Amino acid sequence: MAKGPKKLDELFHDTLKDIYFAEKKILAALPKMAKAAQDQKLEAAFEKHRIETETHVSRLEQVFGAIDAKPQGKTCHAIIGIVEEGQEIAKEYKGSPALDAGLLAAAQAVEHYEISRYGTLRTWAEELGLPDAVKLLEATLREEKATDEALSQIAETVVNQDAQAQDAA
Amino acid sequence: MAKGPKKLDELFHDTLKDIYFAEKKILAALPKMAKAAQDQKLEAAFEKHRIETETHVSRLEQVFGAIDAKPQGKTCHAIIGIVEEGQEIAKEYKGSPALDAGLLAAAQAVEHYEISRYGTLRTWAEELGLPDAVKLLEATLREEKATDEALSQIAETVVNQDAQAQDAA
Repeated sequence: MAKGPKKLDELFHDTLKDIYFAEKKILAALPKMAKAAQDQKLEAAFEKHRIETETHVSRLEQVFGAIDAKPQGKTCHAIIGIVEEGQEIAKEYKGSPALDAGLLAAAQAVEHYEISRYGTLRTWAEELGLPDAVKLLEATLREEKATDEALSQIAETVVNQDAQAQDAA
Repeated sequence: MAKGPKKLDELFHDTLKDIYFAEKKILAALPKMAKAAQDQKLEAAFEKHRIETETHVSRLEQVFGAIDAKPQGKTCHAIIGIVEEGQEIAKEYKGSPALDAGLLAAAQAVEHYEISRYGTLRTWAEELGLPDAVKLLEATLREEKATDEALSQIAETVVNQDAQAQDAA
């Protein structure tokens, strides 16, 4: 309690705990999203991302190692909110041609949260002189951006189909 | 209650309510973030973004008009979570050289949430044949992306200063 104000290394550690909690939450949510998806390409994209997310969790554990800390999560209200919104959509739009569009929107909100967190952590890792952490965080950041782009492409097809279903209804 | 499953136009309307709630929450949070910021450039960036956010709210009201709906918010748990995380950082890191880095991270998480929502809404507006809404959503999307880039640039300077303060401590 006699410690001075928290510094950048502590902010890095706190934010690492935040994204570690978030990745585990996402890992638990992805199979449900894959199961809810109607479009096969979307289901496959969620499954592919689940496998990638396992790697992201393991990379974060290596980043904890790089700062001599034990991997540990810290409740992240943001990701809880984003995941809840996705679950609400899955429930409210069940059986609707718009369901997949809604699931895609939720997944892209998740990706953007991660992109912001990994971008921030990478910048801080550079400043803190942690080259191994920079490499690990950069690798995951690239994959999150690629997933977001892949989801955007699927969104255009899926939403097209939905709009057509809507016209036909 | 006898209605069929919700369709893309309803998903568009629901998501519009979500981001309308979020923009108003952000509008209320930005003056607090500007006040908490230590770096003058960061304070100015938050103030500039507050003024832009007023325009974003007014553009959303025009989008509601384009679908003949009354502007109305719907509780968005994601933005509540993101804003709360920012407030926690402002409290926990008060007086710390890392405070601004933490505020920047929170602000960038907000921007990314908005980028994902506006990107989604713009895609849906195109499919729903709402050209005026597309233009309005696209204009805000461009500004959110520009804000995120401006914050990234400030982050590099601010974090540099923090790291130096850390070395000197």
